[in-house]
Amino acid sequence: MKQFINEKETIITDAIDGIIGSSGGLLTKLDGFPHIKVVVRTDWDKSKVALVSGGGSGHEPAHAGFVGQGMLTAAVCGDVFASPSLDAVLAGILAVTGKAGCLLIVKNYTGDRLNFGLAAERARAFGLKVNMVIVDDDAALPHLFQQRGLAGALFVHKIAGALVEAGENLESVTAAAQRVIDSAATIGMSLDTCTIPGSPKDDRIALGKAELGLGIHGESGVEQVIYTNARDAMAMVVDKLAAIITDGPNVVLLNNLGGTTDLEMAVLANELLSSKISKQFQYIIGPARLMTSLDMRGFSVSLLPVKNSDILALNTSCAPSAWPGLRAIQSTELIPLPDGLKPVLPLATGHPSRRELIERCCNIFIASTADLNALDAKSGDGDTGSTLATASRALIGSLDRLPLADMTQLYRAIGLELSQTMGGSSGILLAIFFAAAGDASSSGRGIIGALNAGLERVQEIGGAQVGDRTLIDALRPALDALPEGMAAAASAARLGANFTATIVQAKAGRATYISPDQLRGHNDPGAEAVARLFEQLV
Amino acid sequence: MKQFINEKETIITDAIDGIIGSSGGLLTKLDGFPHIKVVVRTDWDKSKVALVSGGGSGHEPAHAGFVGQGMLTAAVCGDVFASPSLDAVLAGILAVTGKAGCLLIVKNYTGDRLNFGLAAERARAFGLKVNMVIVDDDAALPHLFQQRGLAGALFVHKIAGALVEAGENLESVTAAAQRVIDSAATIGMSLDTCTIPGSPKDDRIALGKAELGLGIHGESGVEQVIYTNARDAMAMVVDKLAAIITDGPNVVLLNNLGGTTDLEMAVLANELLSSKISKQFQYIIGPARLMTSLDMRGFSVSLLPVKNSDILALNTSCAPSAWPGLRAIQSTELIPLPDGLKPVLPLATGHPSRRELIERCCNIFIASTADLNALDAKSGDGDTGSTLATASRALIGSLDRLPLADMTQLYRAIGLELSQTMGGSSGILLAIFFAAAGDASSSGRGIIGALNAGLERVQEIGGAQVGDRTLIDALRPALDALPEGMAAAASAARLGANFTATIVQAKAGRATYISPDQLRGHNDPGAEAVARLFEQLV
Repeated sequence: MKQFINEKETIITDAIDGIIGSSGGLLTKLDGFPHIKVVVRTDWDKSKVALVSGGGSGHEPAHAGFVGQGMLTAAVCGDVFASPSLDAVLAGILAVTGKAGCLLIVKNYTGDRLNFGLAAERARAFGLKVNMVIVDDDAALPHLFQQRGLAGALFVHKIAGALVEAGENLESVTAAAQRVIDSAATIGMSLDTCTIPGSPKDDRIALGKAELGLGIHGESGVEQVIYTNARDAMAMVVDKLAAIITDGPNVVLLNNLGGTTDLEMAVLANELLSSKISKQFQYIIGPARLMTSLDMRGFSVSLLPVKNSDILALNTSCAPSAWPGLRAIQSTELIPLPDGLKPVLPLATGHPSRRELIERCCNIFIASTADLNALDAKSGDGDTGSTLATASRALIGSLDRLPLADMTQLYRAIGLELSQTMGGSSGILLAIFFAAAGDASSSGRGIIGALNAGLERVQEIGGAQVGDRTLIDALRPALDALPEGMAAAASAARLGANFTATIVQAKAGRATYISPDQLRGHNDPGAEAVARLFEQLV
Repeated sequence: MKQFINEKETIITDAIDGIIGSSGGLLTKLDGFPHIKVVVRTDWDKSKVALVSGGGSGHEPAHAGFVGQGMLTAAVCGDVFASPSLDAVLAGILAVTGKAGCLLIVKNYTGDRLNFGLAAERARAFGLKVNMVIVDDDAALPHLFQQRGLAGALFVHKIAGALVEAGENLESVTAAAQRVIDSAATIGMSLDTCTIPGSPKDDRIALGKAELGLGIHGESGVEQVIYTNARDAMAMVVDKLAAIITDGPNVVLLNNLGGTTDLEMAVLANELLSSKISKQFQYIIGPARLMTSLDMRGFSVSLLPVKNSDILALNTSCAPSAWPGLRAIQSTELIPLPDGLKPVLPLATGHPSRRELIERCCNIFIASTADLNALDAKSGDGDTGSTLATASRALIGSLDRLPLADMTQLYRAIGLELSQTMGGSSGILLAIFFAAAGDASSSGRGIIGALNAGLERVQEIGGAQVGDRTLIDALRPALDALPEGMAAAASAARLGANFTATIVQAKAGRATYISPDQLRGHNDPGAEAVARLFEQLV
């Protein structure tokens, strides 16, 4: 079983306890487990019209996730895809209904209609005012008698919930709910079926196919269609809606059927927002998981023509965090790319001795190409020498345009060159080294101070420390010894580089994946390069 | 391809446009597509510290979903699981950073560290104040150098975002972010890997196994463990956290890695809330998708010891709807089951002629058992006769306890008997019929009025109309004719029942699935039962 459940028999009671426990005290339940599973707002005083919905489970966050101030009063939960019992519905109604009465919001499935319907009769026999509306927003089955209740139920929950909060009476809330139901329409599409807990998955949708006109219980869609991409998929759904969309304003609701990633839903939102009906709707709800079908990899689009009062009702705040809010469609202005992405190189200036020093350094690396590659072959991919040589040649080639006379500008310019010519992490780390050295230089620090600042930033960003088998094992002691002269620095760098041959557990870079036996006895190529540099500059 | 995308190359730009388009004008982007993908708040005036995060995509709603007032200022988005480029990060920093400076919140991956790190250097060269913190909340790899950045990043985004809103300066926000990072810990577990768009899925986790200590890029967990159920799975994660949990107050964050259903997440929440560390945390965030790994069927639990100021910061409202809010753990009182679920039967009363009428009706049905079963075999499962006979026998058996002398009570009592003794939809529909008749009777309507009220309610709840090939086709005309006497009613019922043999497209019940050829020439068994009842009562 690839599902996070315990026993199949306790999925729903376990889940309801989890929902209540993580609700921050907003929700509780009737004391009727396991047979009667009713989630109720804790802050309910029966002074207003009660809104009770529910049905089979497997549609989370519906329905328990929409219980709370501004939406449902209670949710009566059945087992996965199974209507709750008559007793459960009746218990829910009796528990929350006061003098203001109760509206049952029921999706158009036989089991739900019958159990909620008979429960309503029983409740009326107690003298309670109980109305019932049947949500049948399915626009895929216009020729059949029973259009299913789908994600359009959310329009009803939210609008009725807002009217209840505003103190409207039962007849008024019922009329508004019925009006919303009469005008809501939903079409779904899926690339895969859902996995019913404890049952094998039905793999009826082949690769390259999709089902259009889907319900929310894993049943087949009205038709199988060719699936090519998100754009064509949304176009097929939009075609169905285009046939029935009326003059606006309209709200669309983009619902995740459960198993579609948020990344895909964002792609689908973009297709919906640029579809041929995009000028005909002015508001969007989602993309969000609202009425799911377990882990079905699909989506649905619901459409509702709205009056101003509906927009207000959909827009009011409410307690359930599963409600994603209503957003007006409005284009936003692009922000121009900021200046500074293409750094302006300072004017080239001459400084013969620095030019010669840079050339010497670069040539030391170039001369070590084969040796460094050989060392790197022991612990990495054998290209340290080549990478350094390529960067060195490029740096020599850039000398004519470098601001050699100004150390601050020179550090920064070298950093820029290296970030553009030297690949991989090492190129970026050296660029960071020189950029930070430039910052330090601009603050008045001398060469040793600037180099130390560069190394500190490399350690901070790269995360490597002395002892991690990197070039830092040679560079750190070399810079520490540098105040005593180049000879001392070279000697310290060599000691450090040779020490890396004894470090058999690398902690950074590719060598972390190499076994101790392979690393033992070989210097880290970066540290070796640093040691050779200082030795040959003496 | 079982994914809602277009070209692999445009997934992220398509998705970002979808996120911005459905943001209600709250978000926009830099004009740098496709190379530079930076999502920015539209309501940003640079007067406060900018918070910039980002990294590879595939973690939605992170990071663009957390851009907005009270959380991030901008998100720099790479391709799926790939760090954004240096230019993209630099563009993001330059676009949103004013005099108050900018904090980069970076997860601990080499590519992100280097690109954000070098971009920070470049931005500093423009004179901007830029700090950077590295989120490394992974508690699965304590022995390795680089602990990964996981869902604990959300603690940082929210707390830093609230401090920014409160007007704190860069150093203060940075210090708070670093303190949160130093104390946050996350452990993940998954039953399945993720599907990287355009790549085949890695099926390395066998049935019955789970991976513990997971990253968010599809890489293997630290260990594979035996998976039995949600309880044991959460216990393994909790064991790791129990070793490091400190004296509270603590917040836990329950994150969906993407492909786990909300139903399973609720089950996992329940296990976490009843785990051995449940007394050591006082607040919960989620369950919610916060830092996902595409469609990975897994979850993670993050832990944060908090100060009062952190609780306040986590609790402040913010614009991003992807933030699920902080909830205090508090138990709520169960609501006792309401009275009335077990209806109290009225006292039995006698009424010889009614008793005899009921017996006659029941015996008519019992005598028709075989005929009605045979008719039903043509269009259903062949049990209409048996079902009616069973209910009839039960009703006869109940006569001694029925309130025969009071019509209102009698209707209701018959409804109750039928709902308990007659299975399936038909039992509930007949129960609704008699319950509604009872209501009408209590309002003073006579027998015909009460029966009409019952039928109307059955049509409303059951959804069937005349012509739909149900018992209504006989009962409706019979009740219409009843004022003219039983003979007229019987004649009308017979005409109606015989007419059903010509209805070859049923619109309700099981017969909807039967082909016209099979239905033609056979009366609907329910309508036939009604016709026989009226005919034999004449």
